[in-house]
Amino acid sequence: MIPMTKSPLQIARAKYQPLLPASLAGNVVLKEGIVTQSVDNHIEINKLFPNTYGMPLLTFETGKQKSYLLKNVGVILSGGQAPGGHNVIAGLFDALKKINSENKLYGFLGGPSGLVEHKYIELTKEVVADYRNTGGFDIIGSGRTKLEEDWQFDKGTEICKQLNINAIVIIGGDDSNTNACILAEYYLKKNYDIQVIGCPKTIDGDLKNEMIETSFGFDTACKVYAELIGNIQRDASSAKKYWHFIRLMGRSASHITLECALQSQPNICIISEEVQAKNLTLNDIVEYIVKIIVNRANFGLNFGTVLIPEGLIEFIPAMKKLISELNDLLANNEDFNYLHTDDEKRQYVKGMLSADSCQVYRTLPKGIAHQLTLDRDPHGNVQVSLIETEKLLIEMVAKRLAQLKAEGQYKGNFASINHFFGYEGRCAIPSNFDANYCYSLGYTAALLIMENKTGYMSFVGNLTAPAKEWIAGGIPFTMMMNLERRHADMKPVIKKALVLLDGKPFKYFEKYRDSWADENSNYIYPGPIQYFGPSEVCDKPTQTLLLEKGI
Amino acid sequence: MIPMTKSPLQIARAKYQPLLPASLAGNVVLKEGIVTQSVDNHIEINKLFPNTYGMPLLTFETGKQKSYLLKNVGVILSGGQAPGGHNVIAGLFDALKKINSENKLYGFLGGPSGLVEHKYIELTKEVVADYRNTGGFDIIGSGRTKLEEDWQFDKGTEICKQLNINAIVIIGGDDSNTNACILAEYYLKKNYDIQVIGCPKTIDGDLKNEMIETSFGFDTACKVYAELIGNIQRDASSAKKYWHFIRLMGRSASHITLECALQSQPNICIISEEVQAKNLTLNDIVEYIVKIIVNRANFGLNFGTVLIPEGLIEFIPAMKKLISELNDLLANNEDFNYLHTDDEKRQYVKGMLSADSCQVYRTLPKGIAHQLTLDRDPHGNVQVSLIETEKLLIEMVAKRLAQLKAEGQYKGNFASINHFFGYEGRCAIPSNFDANYCYSLGYTAALLIMENKTGYMSFVGNLTAPAKEWIAGGIPFTMMMNLERRHADMKPVIKKALVLLDGKPFKYFEKYRDSWADENSNYIYPGPIQYFGPSEVCDKPTQTLLLEKGI
Repeated sequence: MIPMTKSPLQIARAKYQPLLPASLAGNVVLKEGIVTQSVDNHIEINKLFPNTYGMPLLTFETGKQKSYLLKNVGVILSGGQAPGGHNVIAGLFDALKKINSENKLYGFLGGPSGLVEHKYIELTKEVVADYRNTGGFDIIGSGRTKLEEDWQFDKGTEICKQLNINAIVIIGGDDSNTNACILAEYYLKKNYDIQVIGCPKTIDGDLKNEMIETSFGFDTACKVYAELIGNIQRDASSAKKYWHFIRLMGRSASHITLECALQSQPNICIISEEVQAKNLTLNDIVEYIVKIIVNRANFGLNFGTVLIPEGLIEFIPAMKKLISELNDLLANNEDFNYLHTDDEKRQYVKGMLSADSCQVYRTLPKGIAHQLTLDRDPHGNVQVSLIETEKLLIEMVAKRLAQLKAEGQYKGNFASINHFFGYEGRCAIPSNFDANYCYSLGYTAALLIMENKTGYMSFVGNLTAPAKEWIAGGIPFTMMMNLERRHADMKPVIKKALVLLDGKPFKYFEKYRDSWADENSNYIYPGPIQYFGPSEVCDKPTQTLLLEKGI
Repeated sequence: MIPMTKSPLQIARAKYQPLLPASLAGNVVLKEGIVTQSVDNHIEINKLFPNTYGMPLLTFETGKQKSYLLKNVGVILSGGQAPGGHNVIAGLFDALKKINSENKLYGFLGGPSGLVEHKYIELTKEVVADYRNTGGFDIIGSGRTKLEEDWQFDKGTEICKQLNINAIVIIGGDDSNTNACILAEYYLKKNYDIQVIGCPKTIDGDLKNEMIETSFGFDTACKVYAELIGNIQRDASSAKKYWHFIRLMGRSASHITLECALQSQPNICIISEEVQAKNLTLNDIVEYIVKIIVNRANFGLNFGTVLIPEGLIEFIPAMKKLISELNDLLANNEDFNYLHTDDEKRQYVKGMLSADSCQVYRTLPKGIAHQLTLDRDPHGNVQVSLIETEKLLIEMVAKRLAQLKAEGQYKGNFASINHFFGYEGRCAIPSNFDANYCYSLGYTAALLIMENKTGYMSFVGNLTAPAKEWIAGGIPFTMMMNLERRHADMKPVIKKALVLLDGKPFKYFEKYRDSWADENSNYIYPGPIQYFGPSEVCDKPTQTLLLEKGI
């Protein structure tokens, strides 16, 4: 056998030419739209961003194209991977080279730190060719360094001057684009003549608003997780003996979990935002799950699926309070560290907590109480991200079911299997949707740069229509900003989009979830992402997007 | 939005017409081939199976078809799910109905126990329609009851007589087909006139031999796991900060792990059969992994992937010995149960073990030692299947790396993430290969029944060629039998196919694995299973099969 270096799908997919909106395919002219304002705190945001506030919406249309100046561009991948990042770069590259083959594209290595530390490569035709339509951020790597200090901006300026870079494209989530906004403002204030353009990236789906319909990567990642959930549901209803508790990536918003539920129709799905809004406790959640398990057991169905968002714990108000108290308490009580046994430590903690939090603490399984009290990060904080919520819930549910069984109120058998899906989806080969969307975002970013724009996020919309009907342009960063409390201070940030409980996706879920929980099988099996088949299979956007658009 | 009941892929896939070998497409005639003998222990197997031993190989060819008697058939799904089971039933159904629309197919519910307990449904056109080309065994459910006692056979006979069932098709792994062989022999001995036909099912890939090229489900399950491994590898080489330890289902043979390695080219892959053959210890495995991690760290690469077969622990000779001693020791020492603390229990155990096993026991992380000593199944045995080998290895590797770091021999950072993949693949939508193979297996089983054969496994071969060039027929069960020790006794069983260390798949792996481990990236990203694209993407068999066939 001749050794493989690429899979057949990699080879076939490399040949895919991503689709662009028809308006970008030929000669393009820029139209300025209405003047914008920030989503909230208009006066404060205006004051903080005098040079980039109130800019108009921009749209590209077919028309007589201007002649553009030569431009060198630097691109940065910021934060967690999302499928399609490579296609943003490919679209950016192709547009720059189409406009003038002497335009250059540099990639800063390892995320924002590459800009600060002057680590970069030139992205040539040969380099880019290997990454078209592939998952991952490995073309230049990513990183989590935050660009927020003037000295970082100035170090970045040095390398831009050296390479004659006229514009930086930052591909990132809400935090990275917030910082891109600050950087754009800074460069204008300093008259540095370096443009800053953002791209909306995150599998979490929480960078969206009135204008940005979705962040890239959400489509692909959710489809990968939904594939796995569907497969597990088929296994559950074949073996008929396990409850599968499935935790899904997404530290903050529950969009991923909600979308996966809409795609696969599990028996149970917990949405963090609802838990918070209804002020539910951990025990309330356990009771909700137990009730459904008991009901299904009455029909002889001792199996099912439960979806749990990664960020759940921090959305439970009582847990949030407990964690906050623990952080304060353990940071300010040196003597805690001199206690010997775990039991002593737990006793000590109980004595110091408020009555409410102590009550919550007592209801926690020992292992979790232990983890909350003893496993702390270098800053002394509880490491909430390490809590395996699916196992916590399994333990509490099993205990409650055992009680009910003893009382004769539950006649089933409870056997469980736990899963966590996250890393499986962040670098998947982008779906047709993400491949096209990302390529268009990158292409649009190049056009914004050629038009000498700065402080804009690349925008592609009308995304539930076929790609050729998409529209493209730019949204001022400042339009998405508001003030939020970060530690002690109010900071200008791009508003994170949580799941809206009066939004159509949640409303749809709320309407049907009881029927998914009951004795009739309503499982849907999405199967793996398809690239070559019928359009209704290969090109369907997320349920979230379809519902939000009222389709 | 109109509520979904099926995904677009489910709807599209329902329309797929699985391919049959050309020899089965029209009129079919049976050719008898050479007389067979068992793989080993000829005299003993002949003596145990006087009625089914030495039957000829059978092949179906295009020709003048006989007129067949009316037949009623019962089908059983036995053991763990494997993608394609529903298509075996669809193929069986279609062939029966094509030959005579009055032939009937019954499905026994919940596995072999359905036969014994007389639980069944008739599989009609409408029932079967919903399950064509789908994953799962939910059409009639599966179960793990072993059919091995005469009283079970006789209970089965009752329902067969009642429903005028002339033949039973058992879809299962090596154990289930061993029992099918015993059942076929029993019915002949008793002159009950009930035929028994088997089908080779198991994602583990360990039911194969000179004639059976692969068991169904292996292709699809491995492709699902390889998709996920590929995605994780892309994530690893993008984030550049995690070693991913991935345990893969397969309690006995390492075929799944080997196939996934051949498809994705991870940095490290452990094969149980090699560990056993080389008499490696857990520490040897840890040292092997550590050496590669240290080497990659020297090139600044603090990330990678490690594949671990689920059954590893029991293939480590020293661990196997330890577990066996623990089982004996704790079964025969009542006083152990009166010890109070975990430390006392561990001390007690250390005092009773052989010197070798005590040494092994001492090197184990505390959590695992605890698990081996304290968590026992209802028979008092160590629950090896509950050991999370990937976490065990992570713990031991981390400890060793910390030592090396202290000695200045390791300069990297070791951060790890663990995964277990199993349930994600057992019920996936079958690949084109499995969809066609299973349909052909079921179709062939029906023809064997029409030809009044019993004691045969349905056989479809030449599987690396396009489906129309496949050949179909029957293999006597007895041809695959040998005697093996089960507890105290020698039992006739179908020989389980472990990974052969002188076989081509392992040899290929052995040749290239060092180059996959080193500083150059050799990752392959298989991506999701495709059903509609180019044939080289959609129809490729496993690497294992291609290599075994010398392709």
